[in-house]
Amino acid sequence: MQITGELLIGGRAKRGEGVAFRAIDAANNEPIEQPVFHGALDRDVEAACDLADEAFDIYRTLPAAKRAQFLDDCAARIEALGDPLVERAMAETGLPRARLEGERTRTASQLRMFASLVRSGDSLDVRIEPALPERQPPRTDLRFWRIGVGPVAVFGASNFPLAFSVAGGDTASALAAGCPVVVKAHPAHPGTSELVGRAIQQAVAAAGLPEGVFSLLFDAGHDVGSALVRHPAIRAVGFTGSRAGGLALMKLAAARAEPIPVYAEMSSVNPNLLLPGALAARGETLAREFAASATLGCGQFCTNPGLMLGVAGEAFDAFAANAAREFSAAAAGVMLTPGILRAYELGIDRLTRHPKVTTLARGAAAPGRAQAALLRVSAGDLLADAALGEEVFGPSSVLVECANESELRAVLRKIEGQLTITLHAQAEDADLVRTLLPLIERKAGRVLANGFPTGVEVCDAMVHGGPFPATSDGRSTSVGTAAIERFLRPVCYQNLADAWLPEALREANPLHVRRRYAGKAEGQQ
Amino acid sequence: MQITGELLIGGRAKRGEGVAFRAIDAANNEPIEQPVFHGALDRDVEAACDLADEAFDIYRTLPAAKRAQFLDDCAARIEALGDPLVERAMAETGLPRARLEGERTRTASQLRMFASLVRSGDSLDVRIEPALPERQPPRTDLRFWRIGVGPVAVFGASNFPLAFSVAGGDTASALAAGCPVVVKAHPAHPGTSELVGRAIQQAVAAAGLPEGVFSLLFDAGHDVGSALVRHPAIRAVGFTGSRAGGLALMKLAAARAEPIPVYAEMSSVNPNLLLPGALAARGETLAREFAASATLGCGQFCTNPGLMLGVAGEAFDAFAANAAREFSAAAAGVMLTPGILRAYELGIDRLTRHPKVTTLARGAAAPGRAQAALLRVSAGDLLADAALGEEVFGPSSVLVECANESELRAVLRKIEGQLTITLHAQAEDADLVRTLLPLIERKAGRVLANGFPTGVEVCDAMVHGGPFPATSDGRSTSVGTAAIERFLRPVCYQNLADAWLPEALREANPLHVRRRYAGKAEGQQ
Repeated sequence: MQITGELLIGGRAKRGEGVAFRAIDAANNEPIEQPVFHGALDRDVEAACDLADEAFDIYRTLPAAKRAQFLDDCAARIEALGDPLVERAMAETGLPRARLEGERTRTASQLRMFASLVRSGDSLDVRIEPALPERQPPRTDLRFWRIGVGPVAVFGASNFPLAFSVAGGDTASALAAGCPVVVKAHPAHPGTSELVGRAIQQAVAAAGLPEGVFSLLFDAGHDVGSALVRHPAIRAVGFTGSRAGGLALMKLAAARAEPIPVYAEMSSVNPNLLLPGALAARGETLAREFAASATLGCGQFCTNPGLMLGVAGEAFDAFAANAAREFSAAAAGVMLTPGILRAYELGIDRLTRHPKVTTLARGAAAPGRAQAALLRVSAGDLLADAALGEEVFGPSSVLVECANESELRAVLRKIEGQLTITLHAQAEDADLVRTLLPLIERKAGRVLANGFPTGVEVCDAMVHGGPFPATSDGRSTSVGTAAIERFLRPVCYQNLADAWLPEALREANPLHVRRRYAGKAEGQQ
Repeated sequence: MQITGELLIGGRAKRGEGVAFRAIDAANNEPIEQPVFHGALDRDVEAACDLADEAFDIYRTLPAAKRAQFLDDCAARIEALGDPLVERAMAETGLPRARLEGERTRTASQLRMFASLVRSGDSLDVRIEPALPERQPPRTDLRFWRIGVGPVAVFGASNFPLAFSVAGGDTASALAAGCPVVVKAHPAHPGTSELVGRAIQQAVAAAGLPEGVFSLLFDAGHDVGSALVRHPAIRAVGFTGSRAGGLALMKLAAARAEPIPVYAEMSSVNPNLLLPGALAARGETLAREFAASATLGCGQFCTNPGLMLGVAGEAFDAFAANAAREFSAAAAGVMLTPGILRAYELGIDRLTRHPKVTTLARGAAAPGRAQAALLRVSAGDLLADAALGEEVFGPSSVLVECANESELRAVLRKIEGQLTITLHAQAEDADLVRTLLPLIERKAGRVLANGFPTGVEVCDAMVHGGPFPATSDGRSTSVGTAAIERFLRPVCYQNLADAWLPEALREANPLHVRRRYAGKAEGQQ
């Protein structure tokens, strides 16, 4: 498939008339000559949103089998893009082939997971309370299900050019919920975005769906994103990116005449707690695994372990020394964009110059590449200056030495909301674990033991979310089947004739959806 | 039980030091001499919120049976308040005995409904993905459930002094979710609030729960409410009241360093669509039932039918004439507060003076009482001036004459989000119904046929919610079991030792909760 640099507005491809930009080759930070991408203008945003609004009623009322088939077809068409997709993504992001092939598999499989969810009807959450004409007062028939909220704006993330981008988790869950999607492509991988966008656009056409089910807009700046979030047809926003970006979208959404929800996944330092038993039993292995996790993919994961907490002592010092050796051996890494590299360097500079911070190790240096960094602070200093615990996106991590267990708890009480918190613990740490878990639960969407948080499984039980500021809305997840709930709202029908009801709600259950009926899960005694 | 006018801060009763106020006897708008209530000060808000925060970890990790028992006990203690509660509520609100006795039953039964929900474990939404060590890459064990978001601020509503007030749906669902509650009492029924608050306070003590599980604060103004919503320990807000009030809380919550969700149920005109078949077959009955519903409880229901849409013609004119006769015969009604009466009179005044509005009927007049009003406008004029369709809280309704079916659809497209939309339709209206339902679904939380929206059943299938501005968050309901979801957030545990997991998540399922296991509802093939 050709990359043309055009906007995809419903079924059309159209050269943008906004500011022109080129993709950047992440390996050398040089522009990729062809094609030139042009930003969208306000009227393009309007056209895409109006088409999405028009498409909504037809798309949301499609038979489940048809919507599921469309999602499956999106997956197949992304796979069919073949090697050119992977190669373009490699050039635009600097991520290695194996990682991008894995990400493509994940992207396709999460579209298919949502297709099965749609087929099952489980996300409709059907609840029926049949009429009780004899009761005083009589009860009329009540039937509950969940429908899509309306068109959704999705902002592609820079660090997952496939799985959190044009056809990533936000788009897949919104489409599964019956919501048309308008994507603002991330300017760091516009060609990758266009290829995937064209695959979806073709799937829309092949299924005979209204063209407004999907649009893709470019913009190297913020105007298109702002206009999207302000457009009255847009009913929810999915975003993965920086805290500043997420907060800006939240403000815009709250200031609308009709405020809308923003699901922004923004920042997390993913604290790891090195408990005494674990440090004593396997400190050396832990140090090695930690360094590998922190520098994996040049540290460009939302779940990168950025804060390692332990109680002062020999075992912690040994861990620090072992980890420092590993970090020193880390190769200089290619980052996603020159902007991300600059932000990383500024962040590390801020920390290493801080009088309370000790630099334990720096990795190899190379021009235009990121140099890994392992830093150390005391818990007391961190408690006194929360900025020491702020996310620096990239291959760095901060060891935090706590004077004792009570200081460890004090840090947990003080830290902000996180995507993940990890416990490294042995059986003999059980008492301490029990005092820590309630604190941890209040601060994180995912609680791990004896592993590292990088690597997010796509399944029913995943939570990729967490209290603010990890996300804008800790009641949600952006990964896994529960992600669909973000884009659904409940509707109840009272006393409607069976023939007027949506099929999923009819008494005879022609679609065989799982239901709660008269207060019980159907089939239950 | 004595009414003292004191604040209930955790286990204490304390005389407030803020501005003093008295309850007003709704029947004659005279102050009720005893007791004097005193508003809370900022330090009282802080004390209540800090106690709530301290109570959270213990309260949320209580065994389900214990939390359920506490909710049941709250219900029993409210019932045990006996006639003095009903009499005080009658005096403070002007609502009749039968209505308040019914409301007390509903209040107790919804506490018991949430107790059973807690016992069932269904709201935990347990999902387990067991480890797949053989898979490449291997999957570690993942377990998902939902826990409380943290302390919740609840604002009592004026129009349901029991069921939407101190121990109403918001409080019951938040407590069921494991969240401590700080209630800001509605100043229109402070004595009723104190009685119910003391019952809950005693239930907290009797169960040996941390005192911060419940507090009750008074304030005749807005300072306490604002301070509550701004307090960092508060993690969500439940509110039923005016649009101005709800919007103000939304703004405050969005402006916090850590924004929190506000569930505000704000305003709705609950359009009723009188389809031609229904009007022809039973226009006279409909007019009678409509007038009864619109003037019930002096029109002080969130689901009052405020907008009646029909297609111009003889049948519609006859409906208007019949309804006018009914409205003319309506007695002057006691409203909840002098402020609500004044707002009603101003709203009706604004409409009756509008050049495009015809006054079809006024009910009986009496000093200090509300006079029912039936008005009429053309759909064209309504489309040109949306203010004609804004809620006037009280015993009034506006008939909207549409030139044809297409104008009826145009009005549906234009109106704001609603709690309910009702269809009055016969079998012969089926074709029209089918074109209207998709429009209606986008605008309402509950869709009724051939009934009136007043009367909200408390059950699994109810939605008392709807798109903005009916509520601040159309993804939720404030009535029924689904209301608990507002105060829950998902947490995933990865690779935790079975003994460290909450009981509800352990492999052997000791609490016998319903689970999704390995992608299937347990018990399913």
